[in-house]
Amino acid sequence: MDKFAEKTLHTERIFQGKVISLQVDDVQLPDGNTSKREIVKHPGAVAIIPITEDGKMVLVEQYRKALERSLIEIPAGKLESGEEPRTTAFRELEEETGYTTNDLQYITSFATSPGFADEVIHLYVAKNITVVENKRAGDDDEFVELVEVTLAEAEQLEQDNRIWDAKTAYAIMYARWKGIVK
Amino acid sequence: MDKFAEKTLHTERIFQGKVISLQVDDVQLPDGNTSKREIVKHPGAVAIIPITEDGKMVLVEQYRKALERSLIEIPAGKLESGEEPRTTAFRELEEETGYTTNDLQYITSFATSPGFADEVIHLYVAKNITVVENKRAGDDDEFVELVEVTLAEAEQLEQDNRIWDAKTAYAIMYARWKGIVK
Repeated sequence: MDKFAEKTLHTERIFQGKVISLQVDDVQLPDGNTSKREIVKHPGAVAIIPITEDGKMVLVEQYRKALERSLIEIPAGKLESGEEPRTTAFRELEEETGYTTNDLQYITSFATSPGFADEVIHLYVAKNITVVENKRAGDDDEFVELVEVTLAEAEQLEQDNRIWDAKTAYAIMYARWKGIVK
Repeated sequence: MDKFAEKTLHTERIFQGKVISLQVDDVQLPDGNTSKREIVKHPGAVAIIPITEDGKMVLVEQYRKALERSLIEIPAGKLESGEEPRTTAFRELEEETGYTTNDLQYITSFATSPGFADEVIHLYVAKNITVVENKRAGDDDEFVELVEVTLAEAEQLEQDNRIWDAKTAYAIMYARWKGIVK
């Protein structure tokens, strides 16, 4: 039901970066008035809930410059141009954690910031994970550290705000609901 | 643990809008190399899970220009300058739904897109909601429509991708877990 659809009257392209781009659209509102919409374009991403043989979640700690602090998150990464999300999920799982899987299940997809960005994350759970012998290198500018946690430990990290992002908060809830972590 | 902290060498301010701003930071990485970080600044926001007397969730449908489609979401809105999140929550609940509450409980906060934005959402649940007689008007350029749903209906909307954003997906999981919707 898009009866409130906003017609684009003009698009001003402000910035084209290596991760995101920014544009400002002049739009016609449902009541005929006009407004401006500031829109961040993002290629989309995947996130994976990797579960070890003994029922722990594999998380990654990394510095997030936008927030000027480290966060502990589920592994995630951007889609490369033309890449199927499932392919990205295998690649990012290996690059960020050194694990691979023969059991990658799609869970759901969601927009992260619909008010100003088009980013969509595709979420997977990876069971039966095994260590990759000679793992692919990740991006040059990514420094991550693995953290393997039980459900109780993940919930404590969330209490302590060391886990503090929506996709990981969702993942912990999902893992609790499905009983896939111990 | 911020041993991977990235020191800002230079900040280039690209854009200052009415909702977001954009900057590109040159950073020094932990290995001494440099990189660029594209960062969207956002004032932060609140989101509310309003629960009616008969145990339904109050959702709002609105057009999201960034995604070029309508989404059904929990009510949410940006912090105004200097505003306490709790105050924003009362204001947005009233503006977007026409309800108010004497029982607003803080649940948690999370960053929505830590890879490129500093947006943090503060999430509340509102019980004992009642209709406001003469409700405050919302923003001129916001057109929203109320949708009151049971848990089963919310889950069906999620299946149908009409609910398709992280904060609302989290809210439904939370409501199921806590048994606050029927």
